[in-house]
Amino acid sequence: MARKNAFYAQSGGVTAVINASACGVLQTARQHSDEIGKVFAGRNGIIGALTEDLIDTSIEPEAAVAALKYTPGAAFGSCRYKLASIDQHRAQYERLIEVFQAHDISFFFYNGGGDSQDTAYKVSQISAALSYPVVCVGVPKTVDNDLPITDCSPGFGSVAKYLATCIREAAFDLSSMSRTSTKVFALEVMGRHAGWMTAACALAAEREGDAPHVLLFPEVAFDERRFLAKVGQAVGRYGYCVIAVSEGIKRLDGELLSASGVKDAFGHTQLGGVAPVITNLIAAKLGHKCHWAVADYLQRSARHIASETDVEQAYAIGRAAVEFAIAGRNAVMPAIRRISDSPYRWDIIEAPLSAVANQEKLLPPEFISADGFGITETARRYLAPLIVGEAFPPFKNGLPDYVRLQNVATPKKLTRPFAV
Amino acid sequence: MARKNAFYAQSGGVTAVINASACGVLQTARQHSDEIGKVFAGRNGIIGALTEDLIDTSIEPEAAVAALKYTPGAAFGSCRYKLASIDQHRAQYERLIEVFQAHDISFFFYNGGGDSQDTAYKVSQISAALSYPVVCVGVPKTVDNDLPITDCSPGFGSVAKYLATCIREAAFDLSSMSRTSTKVFALEVMGRHAGWMTAACALAAEREGDAPHVLLFPEVAFDERRFLAKVGQAVGRYGYCVIAVSEGIKRLDGELLSASGVKDAFGHTQLGGVAPVITNLIAAKLGHKCHWAVADYLQRSARHIASETDVEQAYAIGRAAVEFAIAGRNAVMPAIRRISDSPYRWDIIEAPLSAVANQEKLLPPEFISADGFGITETARRYLAPLIVGEAFPPFKNGLPDYVRLQNVATPKKLTRPFAV
Repeated sequence: MARKNAFYAQSGGVTAVINASACGVLQTARQHSDEIGKVFAGRNGIIGALTEDLIDTSIEPEAAVAALKYTPGAAFGSCRYKLASIDQHRAQYERLIEVFQAHDISFFFYNGGGDSQDTAYKVSQISAALSYPVVCVGVPKTVDNDLPITDCSPGFGSVAKYLATCIREAAFDLSSMSRTSTKVFALEVMGRHAGWMTAACALAAEREGDAPHVLLFPEVAFDERRFLAKVGQAVGRYGYCVIAVSEGIKRLDGELLSASGVKDAFGHTQLGGVAPVITNLIAAKLGHKCHWAVADYLQRSARHIASETDVEQAYAIGRAAVEFAIAGRNAVMPAIRRISDSPYRWDIIEAPLSAVANQEKLLPPEFISADGFGITETARRYLAPLIVGEAFPPFKNGLPDYVRLQNVATPKKLTRPFAV
Repeated sequence: MARKNAFYAQSGGVTAVINASACGVLQTARQHSDEIGKVFAGRNGIIGALTEDLIDTSIEPEAAVAALKYTPGAAFGSCRYKLASIDQHRAQYERLIEVFQAHDISFFFYNGGGDSQDTAYKVSQISAALSYPVVCVGVPKTVDNDLPITDCSPGFGSVAKYLATCIREAAFDLSSMSRTSTKVFALEVMGRHAGWMTAACALAAEREGDAPHVLLFPEVAFDERRFLAKVGQAVGRYGYCVIAVSEGIKRLDGELLSASGVKDAFGHTQLGGVAPVITNLIAAKLGHKCHWAVADYLQRSARHIASETDVEQAYAIGRAAVEFAIAGRNAVMPAIRRISDSPYRWDIIEAPLSAVANQEKLLPPEFISADGFGITETARRYLAPLIVGEAFPPFKNGLPDYVRLQNVATPKKLTRPFAV
């Protein structure tokens, strides 16, 4: 097999471990230098391919590549950019082929969530539709944990560990103060459509009465009366109440709570911020002093408290992607298969991109407790192993010492620019 | 010297390391069993003394006491409760003496911030005013870092490390996405009157252009025009802008921004939440997509990322408090004295409670950069050593394994209850 170059890019919202997958891709490609020449990374995802802004990763020293394993963010830049279908925007695909040909690229790795796997799937059709030979492999990642087929998505285990840690710590704070001060604390978490992150907060609880006491899932319509009764009950029983609330919870009529009435000083509807909405409700109706936090980007970039299990899976997924590509497997994505819960064992299987793209895996009903405010033992068995193990980054001067790559672009070979 | 019992309590907002001071107090008292008998902990601060709700710490095993060194929150419960002066509420002080006499208490340790040191100071006057012999020692703590005399306050170093870590990680996230998505991120931090926590965020930056790009201090009036210009400049230069904003920033007319116009669904003015106010302003005036986070309790309970320096100081302060008490030093507080910046060296000195109580140390003008949006090198030299070193707690099943004490009250000896 003739040696060919590869293209790798990161897409969509970042995670604490997407660079661990990049590390797996780059290190494995370097180990297979007979089959893979240079790995070019797209600057800002697929945009880097379209604009021929290709970062030459071969100039990065081994140590810098190794440091990706513990560095959050997307080392090469990410994007929110969805390709149209080949029929709708043929010029985009012709441009990709032009760039791939110019740089002798025959391997395409795209690291992202559901939308990104759709992009990967579309690119994988180039071979057949436009007769350009490219082996295209998706590399899964998403804090949302909503990709199908794979048992979990790299990135989720770390955000789960971060959130459960935050809930446990905030509960120690709240329980200390509740006699004379704050009685309710709400943490707003990501996951607009799927309640995986909200569910993960429940791992903080080990015994009856432990926080969190109330979970608000996007899969469960918000019922104000039942919610207030549940909060009142927790305060009565335990002296305080800790709530984890998904940013995407909706009223019975389907309206998002975060967009229901909160206006800023300029009269604009405030984005996000469902935690203040529900704590203001509690303060008004139950009279309790409340505090709230919105973790936002902190949760998906908290590499300092990443799950070792998640880091290992993210790396293994990157390595498997390269191995699949070398084996000529086009239009596939490595996926994690769970072999057993306890002891936790997993391996990597091959999923067809056609079955992954644009699918969204919500929290299954059997994971949500009967009252809708908690998780079941089934959910706990699923979630528990994903947060196990610590993988602290190195620290320097008291702070995590993350790497920044040089990110030097390879010289352009095409004369025509391409507008994105 | 006859062996006497001691009273210890925690007061005000908690920190990640207030229990490390408790650990220092308890372990040191146990080492001086000739002079100190039992240490009774007040359940929920001074309220525990007034209501004779005294936790018998002697039944806690050594391992549980040792575990306090890495457990956040206030192990015995805290309170927001301020004593009136002896003249105003003599009955409260007579009650304290009644409880102290009943339980043979001659040492009083009060662990808290400015308000709490005021309480400690008032109790220290019992000896003279009401002729009851009690040695009263304040034990400083506050994430606000606003206590006078002491070079820094236990609790601050850990919140500083947490915030600088969050800012660095969120900046990796933001810089990855800014090409096609979010361009501005604002983190709201505590410190209603003093900008120490806001200043600490600047430790995340090492090189020109590093985040955070804009700091909003409570000590500097918010000037909308200059602020927007500064944000626009950062986005233009670096592609994105990271902001750390104190919850207590005020407009030029002195009005709090967090109370300026944001209403909830019920028409109530929203508490906190200045981050959404300023990001909505940026979105409206500059057109950039923004994200924001409010750390709230997460910042002061984040024991998982505590500063080792802070933990050591908190412990040493607790130890010194007991040593001062045994030496008969009434109405004092151990304080940290800085001997040198680099290498960082410090020791503990004695501060009179009269000079500590109700004083608030704001960020000095020479710590704030000329434009009001950053810190000076002087500030950096002061802040840098306080976050050095990691002191991770033990983990179990992927989460910090914090201790919960038994907190068994000693039998009451008084028949009369006391209402607080």
